[in-house]
Amino acid sequence: MKATGFGFEIRDRDEEARSGRLATPHGVVETPAFMPVATYGAVRGVAAGDLRALGAQMLLSNTYHLHERPGEDVVDGLGGLHGFTGWQGPWLTDSGGFQITSLADRVRIDEEGVTFASPLDGRRRTLTPEGVVAIQEALGSDIAMVLDECQPPDAKAPAASAMERSLRWAERAAGARRRKDQAVFGIVQGGVDAALRRRSAQATAGLGFDGYAHGGLGLGESEGSRADAIREANTALPAEAPRYLMGLGRPVDLVDGVACGIDLFDCVVPTRHARHGILFTSRGELRIRHARFQRDDAPPDPDCDCPTCQQHSRGYLRHLLQTGETLGARLASIHNLRFYLRLLERVRAALAEGTGRFADLRSELHRVANTTAD
Amino acid sequence: MKATGFGFEIRDRDEEARSGRLATPHGVVETPAFMPVATYGAVRGVAAGDLRALGAQMLLSNTYHLHERPGEDVVDGLGGLHGFTGWQGPWLTDSGGFQITSLADRVRIDEEGVTFASPLDGRRRTLTPEGVVAIQEALGSDIAMVLDECQPPDAKAPAASAMERSLRWAERAAGARRRKDQAVFGIVQGGVDAALRRRSAQATAGLGFDGYAHGGLGLGESEGSRADAIREANTALPAEAPRYLMGLGRPVDLVDGVACGIDLFDCVVPTRHARHGILFTSRGELRIRHARFQRDDAPPDPDCDCPTCQQHSRGYLRHLLQTGETLGARLASIHNLRFYLRLLERVRAALAEGTGRFADLRSELHRVANTTAD
Repeated sequence: MKATGFGFEIRDRDEEARSGRLATPHGVVETPAFMPVATYGAVRGVAAGDLRALGAQMLLSNTYHLHERPGEDVVDGLGGLHGFTGWQGPWLTDSGGFQITSLADRVRIDEEGVTFASPLDGRRRTLTPEGVVAIQEALGSDIAMVLDECQPPDAKAPAASAMERSLRWAERAAGARRRKDQAVFGIVQGGVDAALRRRSAQATAGLGFDGYAHGGLGLGESEGSRADAIREANTALPAEAPRYLMGLGRPVDLVDGVACGIDLFDCVVPTRHARHGILFTSRGELRIRHARFQRDDAPPDPDCDCPTCQQHSRGYLRHLLQTGETLGARLASIHNLRFYLRLLERVRAALAEGTGRFADLRSELHRVANTTAD
Repeated sequence: MKATGFGFEIRDRDEEARSGRLATPHGVVETPAFMPVATYGAVRGVAAGDLRALGAQMLLSNTYHLHERPGEDVVDGLGGLHGFTGWQGPWLTDSGGFQITSLADRVRIDEEGVTFASPLDGRRRTLTPEGVVAIQEALGSDIAMVLDECQPPDAKAPAASAMERSLRWAERAAGARRRKDQAVFGIVQGGVDAALRRRSAQATAGLGFDGYAHGGLGLGESEGSRADAIREANTALPAEAPRYLMGLGRPVDLVDGVACGIDLFDCVVPTRHARHGILFTSRGELRIRHARFQRDDAPPDPDCDCPTCQQHSRGYLRHLLQTGETLGARLASIHNLRFYLRLLERVRAALAEGTGRFADLRSELHRVANTTAD
């Protein structure tokens, strides 16, 4: 089944890159788009109203984490993710498979699903493909993800068997859908093996999802093999469906993804780096805790329009991070999120301007990434 | 000397309580006023713009902490406290004597000043009455406090000798002033001994400060002996000068202070309690982490006009604090600060309305303090 209230319209193209409009029951997302990560239904230190002001369009929350705390029944009772958090725009929920295997203890994966000991209370829980659909239906996200078996590139087990199991899980997830107003995206797996990726994409596309994600990337593979894996899968995915690159990454990863025809991104990098004092700027990464910024009265990024750069100096931001004041992480997160959101605004504008402008922007980002801000 | 650009005009009176206008070079403060505490030049997780929106008028920062990090020369070079932090309204700086004796190691107090091992690098530093004036002049606060020797009520050393030394230090501080655009407040000491308080107030008033603080209270004495100590000192202080009760306290402590003729307050309670999930509400204290709020979709305080109560439920706020999301501490701090600032707005309005209205408000606060919010 396909969800109602959704639509994806491609607007501008430049080689494989494309811009478009993704309609959801909670509003339209201009693509390519970056989704700030709100694991527990909140972006670290940044409220829904702040995110709107920064230009966020869709947020990502995590099924596994919300299932653990406060529980999907609590979220459902408080108005679903939209009512619970106050973010009334679109929500995408990650299925949690990746988080379980990274965070939980005594993880066992078998045909039924993923069994693990909760880090909260040590009790064993099992998440199944059907259960993960039901949890996300209770959370009320606009876009749900299927449960997949995610393997890092250096995994001992053959990528083929994890990929094939993910396909069987995807079919069970597709059959478990009850809500008509929630889109579900399938996830392509298969590591960086071209044949596996193509096979996974073909079979996932055959299940008729509302969109498709590229999973299991950004885990150590080279940029080139990642791009190859995405392109290989894209040949087998319906061109008119939205494509989502899960969990990546740095600004250059985003423009590289757009160049491969990606429409949606999410990543914790902007907020995590912010907490560690690493700011993304128009002139490269700026490690704001460095002593040379102590007396610097310039804004963190002179070219940035965010509230932090409008109101505060590098010296003050450095001081806040040095003294552990939580305001420092908040102000830095606001800046980095705005940098990411504005980067995607620039990508969309470049694609609208015409052939070659996106390539110019991509080159600029790569050039900046290889320099260090003064 | 008296500072220029300052003035204090008493507007309404009701018994000993009074409202007024305290003019500073960075704006007027309507009194009685509560100053949010920005120890390191930032209120925990709440930026200058947020504080303006909440109705804050004057902030308090700490001389000792800013001297340690980033150093008063850095603050001075970045535009003083106003330019450094972005809070362009009035600033008051605490002298740091109380913080040193609570936080530093190997503290030795002698006639010269306070010598201690810095918790940052272990190096020994000495703060003198003259040095503390110079640091605050570099910080550029609107109101500076003299260095005093603060003694808890259970101190072994006689309160009289600490009080007498504080007087000698106050005289040295008064003689060390260079800036004409910075007010300096003296601090009355003497514990809860009526004779010592009166003697301290008389001698401090004799030095001709711009305002006077009641120090060394809120450290375990009874409410009654605290009120007696304040009243005893007030009889010896110039009635037309502003009076500041340092470091107190809960909402009832504020209205009790106003009833004794206090004009200025500061306290970390609203932000510290917020981080621990204790909210001040029109119906009493609410321990938001309690399980019974898990599914509660009511605002934290239905009578509150703060952004947290306008946009978020008790259930969401509880969830954020339970999961350690820093947004929880921020939203709770915003609420508690607004509760305090609005409480003082109500106090000023009651004093303007006429005799007896402030007593009604004070009774209401005491009644609420003895109940627990549902």
